[in-house]
Amino acid sequence: MSLLVVGSVAFDSVKTPFGEVEEVLGGSATYFSIAASYFTDVSLVAVVGEDFPEAHLDFLKERNINIDGLKRDSGKTFRWKGEYSYHLNEAKTLKTELNVLESFRPTLPPSYCEAPMVFLANIDPELQSNVLNQVKNPGLVACDTMNFWIEGKRDALIKTLASVDILIINDGEARELAREVNLVKAAKKIRAFGPKILVVKQGEYGALLFNEETIFSAPAFPLENVFDPTGAGDSFAGGFMGYLSKYQTFNDDAIRRAVIYGSTMASFNVEAFSLDRMRTLKYAEIESRYQAFKGLTTFENVANPES
Amino acid sequence: MSLLVVGSVAFDSVKTPFGEVEEVLGGSATYFSIAASYFTDVSLVAVVGEDFPEAHLDFLKERNINIDGLKRDSGKTFRWKGEYSYHLNEAKTLKTELNVLESFRPTLPPSYCEAPMVFLANIDPELQSNVLNQVKNPGLVACDTMNFWIEGKRDALIKTLASVDILIINDGEARELAREVNLVKAAKKIRAFGPKILVVKQGEYGALLFNEETIFSAPAFPLENVFDPTGAGDSFAGGFMGYLSKYQTFNDDAIRRAVIYGSTMASFNVEAFSLDRMRTLKYAEIESRYQAFKGLTTFENVANPES
Repeated sequence: MSLLVVGSVAFDSVKTPFGEVEEVLGGSATYFSIAASYFTDVSLVAVVGEDFPEAHLDFLKERNINIDGLKRDSGKTFRWKGEYSYHLNEAKTLKTELNVLESFRPTLPPSYCEAPMVFLANIDPELQSNVLNQVKNPGLVACDTMNFWIEGKRDALIKTLASVDILIINDGEARELAREVNLVKAAKKIRAFGPKILVVKQGEYGALLFNEETIFSAPAFPLENVFDPTGAGDSFAGGFMGYLSKYQTFNDDAIRRAVIYGSTMASFNVEAFSLDRMRTLKYAEIESRYQAFKGLTTFENVANPES
Repeated sequence: MSLLVVGSVAFDSVKTPFGEVEEVLGGSATYFSIAASYFTDVSLVAVVGEDFPEAHLDFLKERNINIDGLKRDSGKTFRWKGEYSYHLNEAKTLKTELNVLESFRPTLPPSYCEAPMVFLANIDPELQSNVLNQVKNPGLVACDTMNFWIEGKRDALIKTLASVDILIINDGEARELAREVNLVKAAKKIRAFGPKILVVKQGEYGALLFNEETIFSAPAFPLENVFDPTGAGDSFAGGFMGYLSKYQTFNDDAIRRAVIYGSTMASFNVEAFSLDRMRTLKYAEIESRYQAFKGLTTFENVANPES
C-alpha cells in the first residue's frame, strides 16, 4: 500500500548546545518520508529549487521513496534557521525563507491520485486541502500543523480538519487550536472539528493519544545523547503512519502500537543532526527499540502478585 | 509495619485559575501522611503552633496517623502562600513564614526510633539527618528536597543523601542537584551520591524511575479538572512509600507498582484544594484508578498480533 505525503523539503541551519550545522537536508515531508519508508511505500509531493543537490534526491530514491511528485522550480529551496537552548523541547526560529514554496500549487501525478492513505505534513492549510482534493478516495487522512497556521489561517485549517481522520500536533498547538488549556477538554473540542483521533506530541515527555473514549499515554525514549530535536515530530508521524500503512489495521490497539513506532522513529532521529541517523538505521534496530519501550512502561496490574 | 515521616505541617494560602483559599491545611508531612495512611501505619514528626486547630488533629487521627511526634510549640504554625498560572506545573511562592519550624529540633518518641521505614519530606536537610540519626535501624529510607536546599545547603543535603535509599524529586531539582541537563546522565550522577533509586516527578507529564540499569516511565493520569497541584508531589511520595510499607517487597517490579500508586494518589489530590479530596476518598477508588493506569499505558509487544 502507498502513503502519500505533502509537505516541505528544506535546507535547515540548526544550532543546539551540542553543535551547529548549515544548510543541511530538512523539511517536514523529508523527515516524514524517510521514517515512513522503513514500513511502507511513500509518494512524496513537495518542491525544491535549482540549488537542491542530486545527492539528496539519491538518498530519497535509495529509501524507495517515489519522487515523481517532487517538483523542481526555478529559484531557491525553502530554508529554515533555528536554535535550541539546553532545554531542547522548543526551537527558536531565527529565519524562514519560503522561496519556491511560496507559489507552490502542485498537480499530482495520476498514480498519486489513487493513494489510499494521505499525510498532510506541516504546510499552508490551503495547500493541504488543494492536495487532498486531488486524491480520489483516501481511506485514511492524517494531518500536522503549527501555531503559525493556527493563528494566521484558522478558518482554512478548520476547513481542512473536517476531512481529516487523525490530527498529530504538539501540546502547545492543541491548546491554541482548542483555545483550552486542559488537554482532556482540548481533545474533545478538537475531535469536534473532524479528526476522530488526536495525537498530542509532548517532546521529551512522550505523546498522548485520544481515541473515542480512551486515552493512551506513551513515553519518549530516555536518551543520554539528544543532539538535535529538529524533525522529531515529523519522524514520529512517519513511523506512526508508516506502521498503519504496513498493517492496514486501524482499531485502538493498532493505533497504540503506531504511537510507539512513531516514538521509536522520533527517538532515533534526535540522535544526530539532520537525517544523519537515518542514513545508517536498520529495521532490526527499530524492532529492538520498540521492545525496549515495552520494558519502559510495563507494570503488573495486581497490587501484590507475590501473594 | 510503621512508616515514619518528618516534614512540615502548614497553613497554605493558594490561588489557582480555578479559585483561592486562605490558610487551609497543608505541609509536606501532612500530604504525605494522609496519602500513605490508605496503605500503612504512619508516624508523624512535625511541629505546629498554638494557632493549629483541634479539627486538623482529629482529621489526622481519623486516618489512624500516630501524632505522638507532632509537637505543639508556642508561636505560630508554618505558613506558605503561592499561586499557579494556567499552566499548573509550577507554583510561584509569594510568601514563606517559617515560624515554629525555624527552631524545631525534634526528639523522637521512643517507639518511633524502631521505625523500619523512613520518609524525609521536603525540609532542612540538617533536620532530615537529625531525625534519621535517631532511628535505630531503618530498613528503607526515602527523601524529598527542593531547589531552596539544593542551592542553600548543598553540603548538608549531599551528606543526608549518603544515607538515603530512594530520592524522590522533580525534574528541575534533579537537573540542579546533578548540575546536568540530560536526565539520564543526571540520574547516574545522583545515584553516585547514595540513593540506589531515583524517582523524578514531572508534574502533568508523570514520573521516571531510575533503578540500577532499568528505567520505568509512568504517565500522570489525564484529568479534566485539576484544581490545585499543591501537595501532589508529597501525595505521590505517600502513595509510593505507603504501598512499599504495606507489601514489604522492594524488587524492581514492586517499585514500579509503587510509582503507579504514587501517581494515583497525586491524581486524586489535585482534584480539590488542600487535602479536601482525601476527606472523602475510599480505598476502592484507589484500586479502580490503578487499573485505569494500566489501560492508559498498555500496548501489545508484537508488531502485528492479528497475523
